[in-house]
Amino acid sequence: MPSISPRSPDVLVLGGGIIGLSTAWRAARQGLTTTVVDPAPGRGATHAAAGMLAPVSEVTYTEEPLLRLGLASLARWPEFAAELEAASGHEVDYRTDGMLDVAFGPDDLTALDDLAVFLDKLGLPFERLTGRECRRLEPMLAPSVRGGLLARGDAWVDPRRVTAALLAALDRLGVEVVRRSAAELVPGESGRSVRLDDGEIVTAERIVLAAGAWSGALQGLPPGLMPPVRPVKGQIMRLRSPAPLLGHCVRGTVHGSPVYLVPRGDGEIVLGATQEEMGFDTRVTAGGLWELLRDARELVPGVTELEMCDVVAGLRPGTPDNLPMIGRTALPGLLMATGHHRGGVLLAPLTADLLFGDPLFGDGDGALASACSPDRFKGYV
Amino acid sequence: MPSISPRSPDVLVLGGGIIGLSTAWRAARQGLTTTVVDPAPGRGATHAAAGMLAPVSEVTYTEEPLLRLGLASLARWPEFAAELEAASGHEVDYRTDGMLDVAFGPDDLTALDDLAVFLDKLGLPFERLTGRECRRLEPMLAPSVRGGLLARGDAWVDPRRVTAALLAALDRLGVEVVRRSAAELVPGESGRSVRLDDGEIVTAERIVLAAGAWSGALQGLPPGLMPPVRPVKGQIMRLRSPAPLLGHCVRGTVHGSPVYLVPRGDGEIVLGATQEEMGFDTRVTAGGLWELLRDARELVPGVTELEMCDVVAGLRPGTPDNLPMIGRTALPGLLMATGHHRGGVLLAPLTADLLFGDPLFGDGDGALASACSPDRFKGYV
Repeated sequence: MPSISPRSPDVLVLGGGIIGLSTAWRAARQGLTTTVVDPAPGRGATHAAAGMLAPVSEVTYTEEPLLRLGLASLARWPEFAAELEAASGHEVDYRTDGMLDVAFGPDDLTALDDLAVFLDKLGLPFERLTGRECRRLEPMLAPSVRGGLLARGDAWVDPRRVTAALLAALDRLGVEVVRRSAAELVPGESGRSVRLDDGEIVTAERIVLAAGAWSGALQGLPPGLMPPVRPVKGQIMRLRSPAPLLGHCVRGTVHGSPVYLVPRGDGEIVLGATQEEMGFDTRVTAGGLWELLRDARELVPGVTELEMCDVVAGLRPGTPDNLPMIGRTALPGLLMATGHHRGGVLLAPLTADLLFGDPLFGDGDGALASACSPDRFKGYV
Repeated sequence: MPSISPRSPDVLVLGGGIIGLSTAWRAARQGLTTTVVDPAPGRGATHAAAGMLAPVSEVTYTEEPLLRLGLASLARWPEFAAELEAASGHEVDYRTDGMLDVAFGPDDLTALDDLAVFLDKLGLPFERLTGRECRRLEPMLAPSVRGGLLARGDAWVDPRRVTAALLAALDRLGVEVVRRSAAELVPGESGRSVRLDDGEIVTAERIVLAAGAWSGALQGLPPGLMPPVRPVKGQIMRLRSPAPLLGHCVRGTVHGSPVYLVPRGDGEIVLGATQEEMGFDTRVTAGGLWELLRDARELVPGVTELEMCDVVAGLRPGTPDNLPMIGRTALPGLLMATGHHRGGVLLAPLTADLLFGDPLFGDGDGALASACSPDRFKGYV
């Protein structure tokens, strides 16, 4: 017989990545008693994320709704970072020095030109730079860089510091983080209940499914409500630089293959990221590293001198339309905050606000909320 | 005041790499009381060695004495491995499936042809293979491999298993391994003494300096006796293969750049190795890994699918003439066993025999011994 636990918070968050922890923090600050369940908080996709807050330079033509979501969340980041640092006593290395998107070959330059036209049409701010202007901004760039695009409004943050800060902030608010896996959704006496992998039952008024790529693995979801998330593997590498190598985040396309270099305040450079459809495979592979190094050294040859201090693979939760699933579901009491794919770090403040913000929907948030409604995939799987 | 230790073995070996441990094992089996000093036994160059026992395929034109040393030691390996496994109860993954040396580009093929002529002249056994014959032996080789050379007599071993086995064998013989650094050679009451970094003094009849790249750092060596060893950095990578990828050791030259892949019994593939003159720098660098992967994937494209499970950099002890320093020095009681550069694993059995074998010199060993005499560099530094 599973034991009946004394735990019955207002909100139970399944998943302790940046999405789950941000959501729990928002709920707890609203005065809701909150519990998080995760076998290894902060060690999933967030651990392998570079932390680019770059809706402008990461824009893709077909994904205007995602761009709008990104811009709305980017606007929340300064306050989110400041409040989180104040609440936790942790720094999160939030930086606003801008993103430099550079092109290597002639085809890459053509793609950059097209992107500039698209951004112009959307009225998004950027500066078009020649190769020489790029190197003036970033002297370590290769002489073969042909041109660039500077998005001054884009920012970045250290996701590992953010999760550490969120865990500290949650601790100060008395939020319990249960280091177990959620196994099954079960009918509760009041509200919903979840059975953990040790048999314990936790009952809550609201349950937030925020388990990233593993969100589809929760048993007991009603037919049609299983979120259609799939794991999209990403490998990143952390390099240690004795002196700061870059002042901006540098993103580039080398013969069609995207790569980015994100400088940290402590001199580290994060180099990422592969995008692989490999199922639940988190092996760091020789080929993944080789691709990253091949492209990064074309853009910034000096990276070869840097020490490799960490390599990790994470699984991003991809959805069929690349948009996240945020909000209420057809099952009363069950909320979702999953499917953020490559945008979990960027979209964390917005996601938390959409679920537990006060007021729940601000200006324009209603349209955003409906674009991310979990119900849009009803019956999809 | 440094404390006077009760330790006064017959033989004190400074350095617990494969050379120091093999020498200590040989001395102890001769009935000599023996002590080894090393802050981290087996964690130096041996830890980063691939373990190729390949005097034939690794031969270089100017280095015939080194080839002779290698062949003499290779001949000792079967017995050394068998005795060590019996004495320790550890397996060392000694394999004799031969070394396949392949050429990638036309220039590499020309170099291989020249090597074949040279080996022929020396009367060394090998088989010349076409690209197709190479792929018949090793189906994972790239279609672009143009030819090869099979050295059936070459072998390989897992150096990490060898040091583990040696430590176990030493333990069974009561040899003490003191996990400290040797700081200074000091005059002793009888024989020689060494002061350790904690102040302890160990006195011994014979002291063997076997500290690899760090051998020149021992204080108190008489003028002219400091061995002219320099650190030659090597980076290697260990990949995990779910199924055996290769049956032979494969060594190749890709546009002039050498690379090798050494299969282990447990499915691991060791990929190595860079050769860098960087001083005492053991950082694993992005550029080192990139070079290894670039060349390895040209020879065996399938390596990109393998999991990367370990990367490490070691410092080989290089000498001005690439020959090791083995034997007595001008200072009575001080022996050397250092400067083995890339050949420490191969030369370990011979080195131990030259120092503490019985009889001390067998047929031909006299000439070998004088080629390696530490005295040849007298006054060099």
